[in-house]
Amino acid sequence: VKVHLNGILQEADAARIDPADRGLTLGDGLFETLQAKDGRVLRLEAHLDRLARGAEVIGLPLPDMDLEAALADTLAANGLSDGVLRLTLTRGVGPRGVLPPLAPQPTVLITAAPLPPPAPAACLIGASVTRRNELSPLAAIKSLNYLDNILARQEAARRGADDAVLLNTMERVAETSIANIFAVLDGRLITPPVSEGALPGVMRAAVLALEGIERAFTLQELMQADEVFLTSALSIRPVREVEGFVLLSDAAARRLAAALAVG
Amino acid sequence: VKVHLNGILQEADAARIDPADRGLTLGDGLFETLQAKDGRVLRLEAHLDRLARGAEVIGLPLPDMDLEAALADTLAANGLSDGVLRLTLTRGVGPRGVLPPLAPQPTVLITAAPLPPPAPAACLIGASVTRRNELSPLAAIKSLNYLDNILARQEAARRGADDAVLLNTMERVAETSIANIFAVLDGRLITPPVSEGALPGVMRAAVLALEGIERAFTLQELMQADEVFLTSALSIRPVREVEGFVLLSDAAARRLAAALAVG
Repeated sequence: VKVHLNGILQEADAARIDPADRGLTLGDGLFETLQAKDGRVLRLEAHLDRLARGAEVIGLPLPDMDLEAALADTLAANGLSDGVLRLTLTRGVGPRGVLPPLAPQPTVLITAAPLPPPAPAACLIGASVTRRNELSPLAAIKSLNYLDNILARQEAARRGADDAVLLNTMERVAETSIANIFAVLDGRLITPPVSEGALPGVMRAAVLALEGIERAFTLQELMQADEVFLTSALSIRPVREVEGFVLLSDAAARRLAAALAVG
Repeated sequence: VKVHLNGILQEADAARIDPADRGLTLGDGLFETLQAKDGRVLRLEAHLDRLARGAEVIGLPLPDMDLEAALADTLAANGLSDGVLRLTLTRGVGPRGVLPPLAPQPTVLITAAPLPPPAPAACLIGASVTRRNELSPLAAIKSLNYLDNILARQEAARRGADDAVLLNTMERVAETSIANIFAVLDGRLITPPVSEGALPGVMRAAVLALEGIERAFTLQELMQADEVFLTSALSIRPVREVEGFVLLSDAAARRLAAALAVG
């Protein structure tokens, strides 16, 4: 397995993150998960735009590097033409303390893995253990601060579900631990606005460009939906159950997956 | 500079964190900042108790290691008898994905630095850029998810202040980016309860054991206080200004620092 670290392709076993890297010590960084097909990264521009917006929010300079080439190199070095790439950007090494150094030397890490097999329709619960903070700008960027999502995902696993719906501070639906969420309600396809704490997902935007509108909704409404599906950079995944309520349709998910050529 | 990594004292320059460490990729871990004097860690039991509570919240096994000895060894290896130690515990290396591995091999990292010089009385602003999420269990543990605090601290720096007061989702005071906050209001010493999003600080508990009570308050009340001070593992620090309102007293801060033998 090879990784791309600060411009150098190297064996993963040899790649070294400094113990003083602020990505490790403070979660001070961003990431993107990208899908590659036939050696090409899908929706690359949208991912790099979101990375740039995140970098602006946390005041991090973007690396002076051809990220498209670095992503392609990492994929190829691992003998993959289809795969999932992860691009991690941290503020790099810093001295003790919360305030970032004035001239950070960001860490850029790219890893690649085979595409996971298509997942079956998901069973969801509503997370009760934590809430997504839509009052923080972090809700709108893909930062390294993922512990709330981990807690929700652990709760799902404890309850035998595949994923958990995170509610925001107003007790409305934001997203799941790893995906955006869409519902067909009263014949309309809806997804929570970013202001509700939904990560502005790249696949979410691709779906919204075809159909659907942004509208806030509750977990109770989700349980009464005609159809629910999840979107991530890797898939459009039907949902078969929300808190014990069974959903029978996956028509919209199938239609959109076909339109967007998503596996 | 020497660090203690997974049981081995080594040169910091040689210490290697794996790029797949979940502390780096997802902020999946905890830390403690501890003060040492005369080769002894102050309030060690309270720090290790908090670490254990955090580990329980995120479902992380505590390392099978004599942490007291490891902390002392790290201090001594750096030629320090007084200093600040940082103990970082992550879930270690994991495959892609949010769900933790069933049998994680946690990463234990200990670093040491000289004690910073005593800081002058602080000038505070109220953070407007983000809010602390008291609805998440993460607010009550010292996790690696520090980006909200970083955003607040950056806002303080932009406005020429030393630190920022983080408000919770109810718009009440929680803490600052690196410290708990106390106020003397109507002749009573008060600090926000943990349920308001205040980290259960070790020095905070030491102060409360001597005097003061937990009570929620707003930034407006803080601006009208007779005295305000900040507590962390390293100091009890007077505040001279809150959002332009000047505070003249530091009597309680001095009295408590003397009682607790804090520099």
